[in-house]
Amino acid sequence: MRQSKLFYKSLKKDPKDAKSSSHALLVRAGFVDQLGAGVFTFLPLGLMVLKNIENIIREEMIKIGGQEVLMPALIPKKNLEKTGRWKSFDVLYKLKDYALGATHEEVVSPLAKKIILSYKDLPLYLFQIQTKFRNELRAKSGLLRTREFLMKDLYSFHADEKDLDKYYEKVAKSYNSIFKRCGIPAIKTLASGGSFSKFSHEFQTITDAGEDIIYVCRKCGIAINKEIKKPKCPECGGSKFEEKKAVEVGNIFKLNDNYSLPFDLKFKEKPVLMGCYGIGLSRLMAAAVEVNHDDKGIIWPKEIAPFDIHLICLGDKKKCDKLYNDLLSKGKKVLYDDRDNSAGEKFAEADLIGIPARIVVSAKTLKNNSFEVKNRDSNKTCLIKFSHISRII
Amino acid sequence: MRQSKLFYKSLKKDPKDAKSSSHALLVRAGFVDQLGAGVFTFLPLGLMVLKNIENIIREEMIKIGGQEVLMPALIPKKNLEKTGRWKSFDVLYKLKDYALGATHEEVVSPLAKKIILSYKDLPLYLFQIQTKFRNELRAKSGLLRTREFLMKDLYSFHADEKDLDKYYEKVAKSYNSIFKRCGIPAIKTLASGGSFSKFSHEFQTITDAGEDIIYVCRKCGIAINKEIKKPKCPECGGSKFEEKKAVEVGNIFKLNDNYSLPFDLKFKEKPVLMGCYGIGLSRLMAAAVEVNHDDKGIIWPKEIAPFDIHLICLGDKKKCDKLYNDLLSKGKKVLYDDRDNSAGEKFAEADLIGIPARIVVSAKTLKNNSFEVKNRDSNKTCLIKFSHISRII
Repeated sequence: MRQSKLFYKSLKKDPKDAKSSSHALLVRAGFVDQLGAGVFTFLPLGLMVLKNIENIIREEMIKIGGQEVLMPALIPKKNLEKTGRWKSFDVLYKLKDYALGATHEEVVSPLAKKIILSYKDLPLYLFQIQTKFRNELRAKSGLLRTREFLMKDLYSFHADEKDLDKYYEKVAKSYNSIFKRCGIPAIKTLASGGSFSKFSHEFQTITDAGEDIIYVCRKCGIAINKEIKKPKCPECGGSKFEEKKAVEVGNIFKLNDNYSLPFDLKFKEKPVLMGCYGIGLSRLMAAAVEVNHDDKGIIWPKEIAPFDIHLICLGDKKKCDKLYNDLLSKGKKVLYDDRDNSAGEKFAEADLIGIPARIVVSAKTLKNNSFEVKNRDSNKTCLIKFSHISRII
Repeated sequence: MRQSKLFYKSLKKDPKDAKSSSHALLVRAGFVDQLGAGVFTFLPLGLMVLKNIENIIREEMIKIGGQEVLMPALIPKKNLEKTGRWKSFDVLYKLKDYALGATHEEVVSPLAKKIILSYKDLPLYLFQIQTKFRNELRAKSGLLRTREFLMKDLYSFHADEKDLDKYYEKVAKSYNSIFKRCGIPAIKTLASGGSFSKFSHEFQTITDAGEDIIYVCRKCGIAINKEIKKPKCPECGGSKFEEKKAVEVGNIFKLNDNYSLPFDLKFKEKPVLMGCYGIGLSRLMAAAVEVNHDDKGIIWPKEIAPFDIHLICLGDKKKCDKLYNDLLSKGKKVLYDDRDNSAGEKFAEADLIGIPARIVVSAKTLKNNSFEVKNRDSNKTCLIKFSHISRII
C-alpha cells in the first residue's frame, strides 16, 4: 500500500481524554478513530491488525475442533427471560423485544438442542467471531473497555464431566498459543466460578493500564485474582504472591448444566454439560500495544502487524518503486512511504506506526547501491545491495 | 469436512412459515436457523457461503480502490440529529443516546472530514462489511428481508461532479462482476434519486419471491423501477416494457452534497461530493438460491458454494478416506459423507445441500476401480479410475 493513498492521519499529541498508552498510540498513529465513549471506528491500519488477530484465533479454534457459526446480535427477550438474565444482566442494551447480545448462551443452547440428537453429536464445539454490546459505565480506557467490541466466543457441549474437564484444558492450551502468536504474555489466573462452578480461569496480561488486580505466585508464576485471594497457589501450593495490575484478555468457564437446564438440552435424560470460552479481539489488540511500545510509538508483534515491511523512500523514486513491486511480488505486505515529506517526519511516523521491519532507501545507501534494513525495536541496521534482495525475501 | 461431524440437521419438510424458496431451502438444508422474525443464525454451511460472498465483494472493492474500515453499529444520536434522520428514518432501532446503524453516512462523513486535508486526499473510497439493523415491519421472506444483516457499504468522496460521475459508472461495472461471480443475473434498474439526485440505480434480480416490481425494456434489457415508471428507457429510448417481480440485490446512489453540508466536509470552500453504494450479503445469498435451485434442492454457483466437492461414500471406507485426503491435499474443499446412512438418504441430502460437483464411491464403481463424478445440475455422470484422479484435481 502506498502511504500517500492510505486513509489515516497521524497526530503529534495524545488525544486529551486518553487514559492509557494503547488508547493514545492507536488514535495518534491512525489505527482507530473514537466516535463516542467506548465506541470506535477501525481505520484501515487498525482493521488489518484486527483481521490478523481474527485469523490467528480462527485457526486455533479450528485446530481444537471448533465449527464456526454466526449468531445474531438481536437476542429475543423471551430467551433471556428463560435464564433470568433479561433482569439480572446489568450491562444489557435493551430494545422492546430484544436485547443486544452481550454473550450468547441464550442463543447457542436452544440452537444446540435443535441439532443434538444422539450420542454421535457430542462433544460439540461451536464458536463465532461476532460483535458484542455492553452498556459499560466506565468505558474510558480506549479499546481496553468498549461498549461495542468484536469477541470470539466458543461454547462446548459434553456428555459428561470428564469430557468437559478434558476439553477445558485443551482450550487453555489453545489460548496460550493464541496469546503467544499475538505477542502478549498472558498469565493463567484462577478466578471465581460464580454460581456455576467452583473456579474459572482468566488470562491476564500484566500492565499498569489494567483495571484488574492479580496475585502472581512467586514460586511457579501462576496467578489468582482478587475475588478469591484466599486460596493458596493451585499449582504449587505456594503462599507468597506479588500484587500486579493486569488486563483480562480471555477467560474460560465451566457452565455445567446452568444453560442446558433452562433450555432442556439433554442427552440420555441427563443435562448436557457446557463450557464457554471468550476472547475480546479489540481488547487483545490494545493489550498488545500496552506491552509492545516505547516512547516513540508502537512496536507490533510480527504476526499481528498491519504490514511486514515499512519501505521508506528518501530518494530515487524509480528504484524504490521497483523494490516495492519486487517485495509485493514475493508476497510481502509492504507499506510504502512514497510521499515527499522530510526524512525526520517519515521516521517519526514510522516509529509511531510500528511496523516490525523497516527498509530505507536514501542518498547515502544509494551510493553503495544498497538499501538499509532495520528492525523497529533495535538500533542495529545493515546495508543490503539491491542485487542481494533475495536475502530478505 | 466430515459430514458426520458437521453441525447441521436437514429437514424433510419446509418450515411452516417459509414464504420463499430460499427461506425454505436454506432452513431445510441446514444453512441457517431462524431465531426470530427477521433474525437468523448462520450455521457452518451458511457461514461458508456468506464468507465466500464477502471475499468476492472485498476483492472487487479493492480493485476499484476501496479501503476497508469498520464503523460501529452504535451511532450517536447527535450525529443523526444533524441530518434530521434521528426523526425521519423510520426503521431505526433506538437506544437512549444511540441508534443502531441502518446505514453509515452520519459516521463516515465526519470521519472523512477529520482526515481529508487537501486535494491529495481526494478522491477517497471507503468501504466496510458490517452488520446493519433495521426494524422492518414486513420481515417475513427469510433472508430476503431481515432485521439484522451483513452489508457492504462503500462511500466515495470527490472534488467535483465529473469525478463522482466517473466513479459511479466504475462501481456499476464492479457490481456486474460481483453479481456474475456470485451466480446471479442482476439487471441495472433506473430508480428515483430521492431528494438527493435525479436518479439512482438498483441492481434487480428477477424472481417471483421479489417484493419489487420492475419494467424491463424489451429492446435493450435495461429496467426501470415502479416509482419512476413514466420515463422512456434511459439506454435506448424504447417504450415497451415487460413487468417483472424482482429483488433488489444492490444499489448505487449519488449523495452529492447532502451529507457533506451538514458535516461541513469541504474542499476549497466547496462541499465534497459523495456517492454511496450498497450490497446486502445475506440477501444476495438468498437471491442466489432463488435463481439456482430445482425441486430437489439448492444448486450453488461455483464461486460461492460452501464446498467444491461432495464426496459420498457407499462402500470401502478406506478407499474413500484416501480419496478424501488426496482431494484435501490438492486444496479442494470437500464435504465427505462418511456416515452409515442409506444411499437414498445420502443422495437426497446431497441434492438438498447443492454442492456443485459430486463424487460417489459405491460397490458398482469399485468393481471398475473407479469413482463416479457428476455435476449437481446435470444428469450426466462419468466414471474415473482411482489411478486417474489427477483428471479432476
